[in-house]
Amino acid sequence: METTTSESVGSLLIAWQLKNKHVLVVGAGEVASSRIQHVLTAGAKVTVVSPAQGLTEQTKSLIDANRIVFCDRTFLSTDLDNADMVLTAIDEVELSRDIAASCRARRIPVNVADDPFYCDFYFGSQIRQGPLQIMISTNGKSPKLANIIRKRIEESIPNGAGEAVEKVGLLREKLMVRAPGVGGEVSKRRMKWIVDLCTSWELDDLAGLDEGQIERLLDEGWERNVVPSSRV
Amino acid sequence: METTTSESVGSLLIAWQLKNKHVLVVGAGEVASSRIQHVLTAGAKVTVVSPAQGLTEQTKSLIDANRIVFCDRTFLSTDLDNADMVLTAIDEVELSRDIAASCRARRIPVNVADDPFYCDFYFGSQIRQGPLQIMISTNGKSPKLANIIRKRIEESIPNGAGEAVEKVGLLREKLMVRAPGVGGEVSKRRMKWIVDLCTSWELDDLAGLDEGQIERLLDEGWERNVVPSSRV
Repeated sequence: METTTSESVGSLLIAWQLKNKHVLVVGAGEVASSRIQHVLTAGAKVTVVSPAQGLTEQTKSLIDANRIVFCDRTFLSTDLDNADMVLTAIDEVELSRDIAASCRARRIPVNVADDPFYCDFYFGSQIRQGPLQIMISTNGKSPKLANIIRKRIEESIPNGAGEAVEKVGLLREKLMVRAPGVGGEVSKRRMKWIVDLCTSWELDDLAGLDEGQIERLLDEGWERNVVPSSRV
Repeated sequence: METTTSESVGSLLIAWQLKNKHVLVVGAGEVASSRIQHVLTAGAKVTVVSPAQGLTEQTKSLIDANRIVFCDRTFLSTDLDNADMVLTAIDEVELSRDIAASCRARRIPVNVADDPFYCDFYFGSQIRQGPLQIMISTNGKSPKLANIIRKRIEESIPNGAGEAVEKVGLLREKLMVRAPGVGGEVSKRRMKWIVDLCTSWELDDLAGLDEGQIERLLDEGWERNVVPSSRV
């Protein structure tokens, strides 16, 4: 029974904020390279520590473009001093675990590739369409099925889904300017208007909205609703 | 241009590990109640701090069942002493931000409901089927579209997907016992065998496997493959 209980425990899936945070990546092989891409896309400032001989072409081009800081050497404990997150992807098991222990002592979130026990968090199979992000985790049970399910999900959502999210985000921003205020009646009416729009329009139609159409929608729909309701 | 750049920055979606970690929830309304469910499912030890008058029925029943520790009072800074993660969901904006600042100083990951600037991480729209977990994030741009996309994803994956993940996990465990060892040839062969199975079987068929069938699959498929390949 204990096995069943521990197996039924999942993870807490969260969207970690890395904008302008310092991420230290120890290692520079294929796995490190994919981690670097992930955290860069999330807006992190990335430092990579690794002897240069292991570098992938992708990482080399990021260094050449000054998009990441590169230290051509093995790890030093002072590397942790400014780190807000640490990702290790090296073959040395003992060194990885030692880094993880130092991170834990300093409360720096850490992921050790292929060593789940030493991880504060895991990565999953991911989909990204602009501001729309989806993660599929099997809690380590089957990375292959995670990929199969990811492909199925990719087929089920229209290509315009990310663009639709972008456009609705823009519409909400513009609506906030027209009808400012937090809480109360105006908040509720704003939310209802957006929810009605999202429910009655197809994702691809939302995706196709341009700025002019967004302004017209707000003029014709929102403004018209606001004026009569203020008379009720 | 700066707006475009900042908008194009996403989050790092991760599966945070909470098993036996201490999570402090400040507040006990609807939002807090949903957060409590989330972290309990991830195996956390939960302490809730809030005056008792705000409690939801759901939270009350968790307290009655001794599944969470409840402190009937307002927040004290000593509440942070054992916390590995803090979630606030209270109406007092200043107090929330003060708690967030203390968490940051102590490097405790914190989420402040409805106050993104003070959050280390956000929650998203979630799907859970046993060990299979999926999160949809629109990076705050449209929670409604996140829900619409979640429903579409739920329709696109078979009901048995979580069960399929569970069964393949079990199969991998049993295969590790039959063919132990990390790295090298045996690792590659194990991985290929599992990948072939996952690709050629339907999710619902994998979900329907029982223990006897799993053993037969290993006997007939894996063992037969192992013996001939050792003669090559």
